Amino acid sequence: MTATTLYAPLQTASRLDRLRQALDRDHLPALMVTGRSNVRYLTGFTGSAGLLLVFADHAVLVTDGRYATQADEQLEASGVTASARIAAAVEQGRVVGEVVAAAGPGRLGLEAAQISWAQHRQVTEEWVPGVEVVATIGVVEALRRVKDPGEVDRITAAATIADAALAAVRPLLEDRCTEQEFALALDTEMRRQGAQGPSFPTICASGPNAAKPHHRPSPRPIDPGEAVVVDFGAVVDGYCSDMTRTVWVGELSDPDLRRAVQVVAASQAAGVAAVAAGVACQDVDRACREVIGDAGWGAAFVHGTGHGVGLDIHEAPAVSATSADTLAEGHVVTVEPGVYLPGIGGVRIEDTLVVTERGSRTLTSTPKELL
Amino acid sequence: MTATTLYAPLQTASRLDRLRQALDRDHLPALMVTGRSNVRYLTGFTGSAGLLLVFADHAVLVTDGRYATQADEQLEASGVTASARIAAAVEQGRVVGEVVAAAGPGRLGLEAAQISWAQHRQVTEEWVPGVEVVATIGVVEALRRVKDPGEVDRITAAATIADAALAAVRPLLEDRCTEQEFALALDTEMRRQGAQGPSFPTICASGPNAAKPHHRPSPRPIDPGEAVVVDFGAVVDGYCSDMTRTVWVGELSDPDLRRAVQVVAASQAAGVAAVAAGVACQDVDRACREVIGDAGWGAAFVHGTGHGVGLDIHEAPAVSATSADTLAEGHVVTVEPGVYLPGIGGVRIEDTLVVTERGSRTLTSTPKELL
Repeated sequence: MTATTLYAPLQTASRLDRLRQALDRDHLPALMVTGRSNVRYLTGFTGSAGLLLVFADHAVLVTDGRYATQADEQLEASGVTASARIAAAVEQGRVVGEVVAAAGPGRLGLEAAQISWAQHRQVTEEWVPGVEVVATIGVVEALRRVKDPGEVDRITAAATIADAALAAVRPLLEDRCTEQEFALALDTEMRRQGAQGPSFPTICASGPNAAKPHHRPSPRPIDPGEAVVVDFGAVVDGYCSDMTRTVWVGELSDPDLRRAVQVVAASQAAGVAAVAAGVACQDVDRACREVIGDAGWGAAFVHGTGHGVGLDIHEAPAVSATSADTLAEGHVVTVEPGVYLPGIGGVRIEDTLVVTERGSRTLTSTPKELL
Repeated sequence: MTATTLYAPLQTASRLDRLRQALDRDHLPALMVTGRSNVRYLTGFTGSAGLLLVFADHAVLVTDGRYATQADEQLEASGVTASARIAAAVEQGRVVGEVVAAAGPGRLGLEAAQISWAQHRQVTEEWVPGVEVVATIGVVEALRRVKDPGEVDRITAAATIADAALAAVRPLLEDRCTEQEFALALDTEMRRQGAQGPSFPTICASGPNAAKPHHRPSPRPIDPGEAVVVDFGAVVDGYCSDMTRTVWVGELSDPDLRRAVQVVAASQAAGVAAVAAGVACQDVDRACREVIGDAGWGAAFVHGTGHGVGLDIHEAPAVSATSADTLAEGHVVTVEPGVYLPGIGGVRIEDTLVVTERGSRTLTSTPKELL
């Protein structure tokens, strides 16, 4: 089974022209794309190393010999008009210099958030010394915010696999499994169901460990009555999903945690209800934060409300108190408030949603009351 | 079982002083450490976000609220003399500015390969505008080259798990499993045996797919007589192992591949034999490349010979034709020559080794003739 045949095709072939329109608006004749997910988005190339030079009338993918066959195959499969140049890492500066000199753009954009300071120095001093280099931020990332139907299909498939995996492995909790055993079972089940892997290292935090939002699974056995925060996702054809549920066996033993489950569920529902095209991300964050603040736990909600999800597990837009972003139809974001009580435990609930004209469609379907 | 209790303790507590000696030599009064593995190496802190400010007489770890409890716990467990400051991402610039202003170092080193150009601009323009910022390259990475006994113990454990996992899942090949099934079985088995996870996405490339050194596992069933390149490793307590074997069922059907297996095995043995303290990494690469070149396949060996392994799967020193590095006792490196024949297949063999005074100790113990 090649899973990709089940989904709407990705509109990869049209993306370079959308990028060129954005570059035109910024009066940039050329861009060197170094972000790995950005290169993949624009070309379909999935190699771990490679950069893409985009000019007004052509584009060149520069990668190394490990990817010679793959680069040609993937460019062709994506219908992207670009050529591949193969060069060992130490030769790539010379190749980039030649390609840029031949195109003669005068100015070259560099993805400032996707290139190290050291690489920037090398590019300006050695690779293209006569060319004016300009910092760009988030140009390709902005194109990636609105997902095309093929992208939504893949994220939906990843979310569905995550739901099914949690349902399949949940009975393990009743056998007093450890955090590590539960996380391994989840990851394995996601892959059995067709995921390429987890979209980030699976979090399974029980008892007092759940007070740490990013706890790593430990050999701690999970006891009845403890809150267990499980935060995980799947990758399908490069696209991520992200979900969190707080689960337990029997009855939650701590009264504060019993109340926190209700508060966080109400907060999360308020956040989801706030999501719609045209809404400021700050307002979604505020909707979540108000419910938790009213319960007296404002300081215990120690992270942002959510983030975009796609080729990267964290991408634009940010859903936080300081975000300047506005939601649009086709954005895919998480809503994931939490309350963390040091020494006691924690609660977090998270769905992945597609933003629609009037609201959202929730891709995560696991019920929130997993008693 | 807390696996870490089985190994020699990590010498984390002494590392900040070793760094300060290196900074003294470079006349640098302060360094902002942003590389994630570098922060972990110096402090024991394993969070996914955080930076470390190192001054002559104190050090400050700045991270966000998700890691408040964990940061204090891990600094204490490592015996590191450093304090933690917790601040939301948008507040960290202000906190760093305060901490640096209070220390008043005048000059501040920034890890140029571990910070984006965008972050560099933000640090210089907004966080510490009055401070002279200096690019450093590889200062902490240089300390990380020579592994202490606790680090070698963890890499050894990771290599042993990888060996055992391959032995456990190898029979699957006789059932005509797919590349994806084989990779999943390997990853699951490594975790069952105590690994935190694979050290990178496991490669399983069969038949013509093996001509791509970094092929991703596909749903292709593996047939008898095909060469299967399996490149994978485990992570134990943050430390990576890395190994490759080329395996097959029955007899290899292609005569070129039969010859390539012999040639690559001889090349790999020549590379391992060349490893010793004081040897230039270029010479190890040359030893491998000569054997393959003599067989007429010089152009089919399309990548470097190897790399250091530790907290990162690829770290210093590089073992390649252009490397300026020299091996020293306690370095841990891979030796992994390969031959790739487009349309036919490929062969790669890789071990992880600890460099000793007179040679090396091979941590990978799977036999190379897996007939």
